[in-house]
Amino acid sequence: MARVGFIGLGMMGDPMCRNLMAAGHDLTVYNRSQDKMAPLVAAGAKGAASVADLAARCEIVITMLPDPAAVREVAAGPEGILSALAPGKTYVDMSTVSPESSREIAALTRRTGADYLEAPVLGSRKPAAEKTLVILTGGDAAVAQRMEPLLLAMGSKVVHMGEAGAAAHMKLIVNQIMGTILCVFAEAALTGIAAGLSAEKILDVVQASAAACPVIRAKGPDMLVGRVFAAQFPLRHAQKDMRLAVAAGDAAGVPTPVTAAAHQLFSIARERGFGDHDVSAVLRALTSR
Amino acid sequence: MARVGFIGLGMMGDPMCRNLMAAGHDLTVYNRSQDKMAPLVAAGAKGAASVADLAARCEIVITMLPDPAAVREVAAGPEGILSALAPGKTYVDMSTVSPESSREIAALTRRTGADYLEAPVLGSRKPAAEKTLVILTGGDAAVAQRMEPLLLAMGSKVVHMGEAGAAAHMKLIVNQIMGTILCVFAEAALTGIAAGLSAEKILDVVQASAAACPVIRAKGPDMLVGRVFAAQFPLRHAQKDMRLAVAAGDAAGVPTPVTAAAHQLFSIARERGFGDHDVSAVLRALTSR
Amino acid sequence: MARVGFIGLGMMGDPMCRNLMAAGHDLTVYNRSQDKMAPLVAAGAKGAASVADLAARCEIVITMLPDPAAVREVAAGPEGILSALAPGKTYVDMSTVSPESSREIAALTRRTGADYLEAPVLGSRKPAAEKTLVILTGGDAAVAQRMEPLLLAMGSKVVHMGEAGAAAHMKLIVNQIMGTILCVFAEAALTGIAAGLSAEKILDVVQASAAACPVIRAKGPDMLVGRVFAAQFPLRHAQKDMRLAVAAGDAAGVPTPVTAAAHQLFSIARERGFGDHDVSAVLRALTSR
Amino acid sequence: MARVGFIGLGMMGDPMCRNLMAAGHDLTVYNRSQDKMAPLVAAGAKGAASVADLAARCEIVITMLPDPAAVREVAAGPEGILSALAPGKTYVDMSTVSPESSREIAALTRRTGADYLEAPVLGSRKPAAEKTLVILTGGDAAVAQRMEPLLLAMGSKVVHMGEAGAAAHMKLIVNQIMGTILCVFAEAALTGIAAGLSAEKILDVVQASAAACPVIRAKGPDMLVGRVFAAQFPLRHAQKDMRLAVAAGDAAGVPTPVTAAAHQLFSIARERGFGDHDVSAVLRALTSR
Repeated sequence: MARVGFIGLGMMGDPMCRNLMAAGHDLTVYNRSQDKMAPLVAAGAKGAASVADLAARCEIVITMLPDPAAVREVAAGPEGILSALAPGKTYVDMSTVSPESSREIAALTRRTGADYLEAPVLGSRKPAAEKTLVILTGGDAAVAQRMEPLLLAMGSKVVHMGEAGAAAHMKLIVNQIMGTILCVFAEAALTGIAAGLSAEKILDVVQASAAACPVIRAKGPDMLVGRVFAAQFPLRHAQKDMRLAVAAGDAAGVPTPVTAAAHQLFSIARERGFGDHDVSAVLRALTSR
Repeated sequence: MARVGFIGLGMMGDPMCRNLMAAGHDLTVYNRSQDKMAPLVAAGAKGAASVADLAARCEIVITMLPDPAAVREVAAGPEGILSALAPGKTYVDMSTVSPESSREIAALTRRTGADYLEAPVLGSRKPAAEKTLVILTGGDAAVAQRMEPLLLAMGSKVVHMGEAGAAAHMKLIVNQIMGTILCVFAEAALTGIAAGLSAEKILDVVQASAAACPVIRAKGPDMLVGRVFAAQFPLRHAQKDMRLAVAAGDAAGVPTPVTAAAHQLFSIARERGFGDHDVSAVLRALTSR
Repeated sequence: MARVGFIGLGMMGDPMCRNLMAAGHDLTVYNRSQDKMAPLVAAGAKGAASVADLAARCEIVITMLPDPAAVREVAAGPEGILSALAPGKTYVDMSTVSPESSREIAALTRRTGADYLEAPVLGSRKPAAEKTLVILTGGDAAVAQRMEPLLLAMGSKVVHMGEAGAAAHMKLIVNQIMGTILCVFAEAALTGIAAGLSAEKILDVVQASAAACPVIRAKGPDMLVGRVFAAQFPLRHAQKDMRLAVAAGDAAGVPTPVTAAAHQLFSIARERGFGDHDVSAVLRALTSR
Repeated sequence: MARVGFIGLGMMGDPMCRNLMAAGHDLTVYNRSQDKMAPLVAAGAKGAASVADLAARCEIVITMLPDPAAVREVAAGPEGILSALAPGKTYVDMSTVSPESSREIAALTRRTGADYLEAPVLGSRKPAAEKTLVILTGGDAAVAQRMEPLLLAMGSKVVHMGEAGAAAHMKLIVNQIMGTILCVFAEAALTGIAAGLSAEKILDVVQASAAACPVIRAKGPDMLVGRVFAAQFPLRHAQKDMRLAVAAGDAAGVPTPVTAAAHQLFSIARERGFGDHDVSAVLRALTSR
């Protein structure tokens, strides 16, 4: 089996690494704050001294980083991954980035003679631990096919979307739909509650209807009852994704009036100070209570 | 068992009647266009000569009619149901009506000394046939409890929402969320397709995501590929429901900007001539192709 | 000259009465809180003992009341205007009411044999005092023509819009456009200020542009600098007008997505507690500062 | 007086040049399609052989070009203006560009030691001919002050907005407000007409109201009656400006829900094929008639 390197050992990266090891992969790990490396090394992974060290020692390099800026620094910065790539190696970026950013890294990677694959995931901590992530791939089809067994060690389904950027776009589509669902659910449920319906029954019936979906199941109870809005996916990230979705529609010549209204509702929630709360705090744009 | 009368033998009423008979109920049926009665009579139901005849002969009278105007005529019109109601009888309206309309019929029914229950359903032809309708009840809790076994002969789940009007409001909430989901799905998917993603893969991934929901599963393929838009739930009804949902928010003091944007998108689709197509033809507001 | 009665001696009614007297009309006045009558009686008007007393003594009865409910009570309530109307008399309602409400009062008036004219005005306190109100009329064209000289004693321009309800609709159109202008002005100016432009220069340039309009001239400085929002036209009335405008579009089959977005912005401002502030406080839906 | 060079002799540039000459300026002109130069040369201007030739011969170089791409090519392209600039010279760009584009050209100009001023105008062909343009300046305050007499030879008012980019932003604000006004005017007037009001009276009353503004006066009659939509300002440019305005709000943390709804209405009109018609063809997004 190929030597696999994994950079970015956060909430997602840690369980993904454990699943790779459980599948028998020879794993080398690296993380900027090194305290995150110890538990994985204790579990059998090798620790790398630096990004470049990891990239030099592995045939396949995976990154799982919080944002495009981090990817650009780790991949294309000084002593970054690209500096150690060479023909025969493959760089797989599983972070959530924009289509443009992915295409840019793809071009830089190809100049080194190495292969590139974008592979963003649907699902957060729990599906990562349970190996039920859905993994979207963008890039050369042959590379995607070659990486599929490796990816299936971390998730339950791999869908190859097309060229570099296509997987990033697909993830944006999912976030666009989810964000808008949370908005309309908040509007509808708050109206029902104000008119005297029970929050529990609203949740119960919506989940038994043709509008039932995992995102309402996961976030509905806190939205209607608890209102803690502990950030799993911060609202300011959702606001940015809605903005990118409207921009993608504009670039493609497709009007997106409902997405635009949802984007603006997220903007109002952010302006009210809920940017660092969970995406579901968009409800706060509608009510001060 | 009580003698049950059923008025409105359309796409929904017919299979609901068959399920009532299968559960052993003594069923009398009536429909304005009488050719719809024959198959049920052949299957064991009794045929009534008129609305008033049916209401006079049965302890429980059920209506399943296309709109509030039909309900008002059949219930409160000359020689309507109300004219034959009396203490000890129960009128159960399973049509989809507005909260106001339901409260009005409730008041009129109570004047006759009879009981009233609104019981709109979630689900269309197929769940009606398969007895998997979700039935929402509004009205007196004791009446709702008394009717529950009867209703469970036609569906898989009964939820008592509260006073008369509450079930109608709950159904509006479901339609509000579903209508908006179709809008944002159309916006997102058309953008993706225009950017080169495959319609099949978009559907596949959305259905594997936290935004997966039955309404996208049911209507997505036709929206993205077939574009036949055969009316299961006509767009002009959905447009009206979105309007009522915005009005309900307004009355309750809850802003509904995303629902309002979706309502307007339905208005544009209606203006473009898609009012009698399926609700999913809202996609046509976004593209002429 | 005909004997003219005027009911409703508020901010608008008082100066309108003074202009009628200045034009030589024989004026009788009435107001529920009677302290408002004294200054006009001191200036030469006759005081009536009650609504019915006034209506009995005058050929032409004018009302200028705050809302449709007040009009309905004063006109159609017990001992209201209608009770004293008769053929040969004319009832002119200058209040701002809905098209439906106006058509209803028109029908009730005609049953008494008297004539009816709706005559809502554009302009508030200052144009009322300066006799520069624009007066819109709805009702029978011959009645409108007969009343025109009287109306021109209170304003500078009279436009006959059509049947009863048409003037009310025209006023709604004006309020719909004004309300939306305030929204977009707030959005644009706040963005400019946040990006470092001077509020004064933004106002100066907008007022020199093709977007210059009296409503921005009147309210812009307070919106950008003072932020007192003293109610000239309360926000909750504007929110209601935007709602009626969207409903009018819906009834006419005309989509109104921009008006709907403005309506929702007013709803958010109202929810934030600015319903009793001036309409221009819609800016508060966009910023907490 | 300084030698002034003018590049871009289109619909705007030609009358602006004539006004410069009428004020006594020593004018040199250049245009890519050279047939536009002849009438001005006949009127007394000198003709330059190329952009660089003009820039070499003049102390002040003015551009009035259709879009940022043209400005970038003429200013920063090979043998462009910048290649011939030097300390003591001033480059004044009167084209409509984005704040970013203006800041970029400003930086490039300063590297040559020359001065830069952005000076976009409000007003089109007629105000250009009548010398009633409003000219907004962005850049160094001393440069703006020095150029003011020159600019006042082409317009009636000059407002210095601040640093480079500030004038471009101010023009965006004006276009944002104008575009939204056209949307709401279309929505309101179409509703009124559908409800039976006369188009002429709607125009008459709006123009007598607090919502009266030059853009409705200029475009209203064609929108409601003629529906020719001859492009003075093409709809796709307006759509782009609305998009930039929403993006500016987003960057500044200011929600812009009404602008966003207007932007989407322009998108729908563009998708319907009205991109090259006048901005007022946004009405076509609302009605097929």
